[in-house]
Amino acid sequence: MAPLISFSRRVRETPYEARVMAQGARAFTVYNQMTLATFFRSPEEDYWHLREHVQLWDVACERQVEVRGPDALRLVELSTPRDLSACRIGQCVYAPLCDETGGIVNDPVVLRLAEDRFWISIADSGVLLWLKGLAIGRGLDVEVFEPDVNICALQGPGAERVLQPLVETDLRTLRFFRFFETRIAGAPVVIARSGWSGQGGFELYLQDSSRGLALWDAIWESGEAHQIRAGCPNLIERIETGLLSYGNDMTLANNIFECGLDRFVKLGKEAEHLSRRALDRIAREGVAAKLAKIDIEGGPAPALRATWPVFAAGRQAGYVTSAAWSPRFESVVAFAMVDIEHTQVGTRLSVLAEGESGARPARVVAGWER
Amino acid sequence: MAPLISFSRRVRETPYEARVMAQGARAFTVYNQMTLATFFRSPEEDYWHLREHVQLWDVACERQVEVRGPDALRLVELSTPRDLSACRIGQCVYAPLCDETGGIVNDPVVLRLAEDRFWISIADSGVLLWLKGLAIGRGLDVEVFEPDVNICALQGPGAERVLQPLVETDLRTLRFFRFFETRIAGAPVVIARSGWSGQGGFELYLQDSSRGLALWDAIWESGEAHQIRAGCPNLIERIETGLLSYGNDMTLANNIFECGLDRFVKLGKEAEHLSRRALDRIAREGVAAKLAKIDIEGGPAPALRATWPVFAAGRQAGYVTSAAWSPRFESVVAFAMVDIEHTQVGTRLSVLAEGESGARPARVVAGWER
Repeated sequence: MAPLISFSRRVRETPYEARVMAQGARAFTVYNQMTLATFFRSPEEDYWHLREHVQLWDVACERQVEVRGPDALRLVELSTPRDLSACRIGQCVYAPLCDETGGIVNDPVVLRLAEDRFWISIADSGVLLWLKGLAIGRGLDVEVFEPDVNICALQGPGAERVLQPLVETDLRTLRFFRFFETRIAGAPVVIARSGWSGQGGFELYLQDSSRGLALWDAIWESGEAHQIRAGCPNLIERIETGLLSYGNDMTLANNIFECGLDRFVKLGKEAEHLSRRALDRIAREGVAAKLAKIDIEGGPAPALRATWPVFAAGRQAGYVTSAAWSPRFESVVAFAMVDIEHTQVGTRLSVLAEGESGARPARVVAGWER
Repeated sequence: MAPLISFSRRVRETPYEARVMAQGARAFTVYNQMTLATFFRSPEEDYWHLREHVQLWDVACERQVEVRGPDALRLVELSTPRDLSACRIGQCVYAPLCDETGGIVNDPVVLRLAEDRFWISIADSGVLLWLKGLAIGRGLDVEVFEPDVNICALQGPGAERVLQPLVETDLRTLRFFRFFETRIAGAPVVIARSGWSGQGGFELYLQDSSRGLALWDAIWESGEAHQIRAGCPNLIERIETGLLSYGNDMTLANNIFECGLDRFVKLGKEAEHLSRRALDRIAREGVAAKLAKIDIEGGPAPALRATWPVFAAGRQAGYVTSAAWSPRFESVVAFAMVDIEHTQVGTRLSVLAEGESGARPARVVAGWER
């Protein structure tokens, strides 16, 4: 029998959870000590629906860390090799956080709410304590706390049609990774054009958890004419789209260059940041391995529990970090950390999936979405 | 249908997981980004077996944060209001970590391995990043990292009989919260007389994850004559024993006095620590609410998802943080955060459990175990 999930107060309830349950979420994971559904009907059925229609996701587990005060920008800059000096109010920036070795602490989206006020919209690691620790240790004049903010996301090609009737702003004027503030059904929300899929849509940062169900219901009602369903980040879709998952595809043990996130590193960044010395050195010396997109032949594979070994020229050359059967490409789409000499597009590899007796042919690809 | 748990690399596999699965764990939670079983047969059946025999628990999710170097003691002292100056090598100390407001960051057991080397054996929060942040911010001369250490625990009245044949040390000489180093089946382990139950036993800190199954199997073999079973921390037993769970019974929003952990605060502690000013003030002013043990009448209650309201004299006076039906006391044993004026032993309260239409009578108790 497949194991069940146990809930408790420690695995925090989200403001939308009653609706997620009512819509029949079949499986959950825990993310930032909060629930996150992983599929409703099946990963494949959810995938097709997300690509063709529109879904409402409870992603409250993308917790916010608010940084506010005179030293707010200084603290945020200190935590990332990305240059935030040009980040304007109303703008989102993907800014991986690195420690003093260049290891990835988290890969959040940073929202600038005011000159001296940011939300760090985090992946699954203890950024609240990390930034608090740095700020206290340094004696910075800044508050670091978790505000009452819970995201729901509207994702899929129908997202704009569902959201437009609920807001006054003309959504066609809202660019990618920009946000504005408004109210929906009395609920104060920050709405960004963003989200963890390649199908387009919005993230709604609800600022009053007591209004979670009212917000959910208002969106749902607007979506009924557009075949809205409850959904969640979809493993197949996010791999095809090339979205990395912190904890799966990268950890504190990986530096930002290994993860192919070079374009978010400003080597000559003016503001002080923790990882400067380490990243300067790694940029000079190069990396031994790199995250690659790989396409694995054969039919549906078992779910990846931890990692699968990757082979090149008869020797282990890395490991798969995420994998899913793609019903569209009819192969297993995957990320793998692979020795640098085997990461060129077209390189032939093989992969031993858990529970299988023989390795499957695989190759490095540029991507699946074009 | 009860929801399933989804695994992925992000929810880290433990070195013992294959055996936990083979033994039929029915449900899991996620703790420190790692799996933790919550029951095998049923919470009640597991409970009776734990009290009467012996269980082997995979508690690798109690991650270790190693603090090592010239400033190691200084950093650990900085993080807790407990006085560690008398902590000797070979000793474990329960030392709640507090932030600058007195809020509880975590409630770990600290092991002193050498003058300048500690393991912080943590509950479910990002202590690694917290201590790294503090150390980097302060410029302390210390390394902070997660070592390759994975705990399995042997708990229950039969624990000593199972472990003794596997070690040379006479276990009768090992006092509570003391540890020694040895090898079992080639696996290097630190063994402490400790564990998250009131039934006695040991925690084995495995220092080489590749030997997890060898260690498990050696203990299992020794346990077969003693009716050993795979188990896990048991909700009923831990409440009856009075063991608090971080994230359930206390969070960063609670200060250490509210949680009744006064005896772990040394107000005049000599070493510098973050929470001194806040805790001095709270000690002077007192707290408005306090965690209480309460006994709730009536039959088995639904599982507690988040909190249940507690009433006194017709008004809400707090909330339940953990609750379980006790088959031994035939009542619901619980912790609740209750307004201070209603926390005296014997005080009559009432509790509205989720999904129930009427409140149940309850009262504050000194405890259940004597």
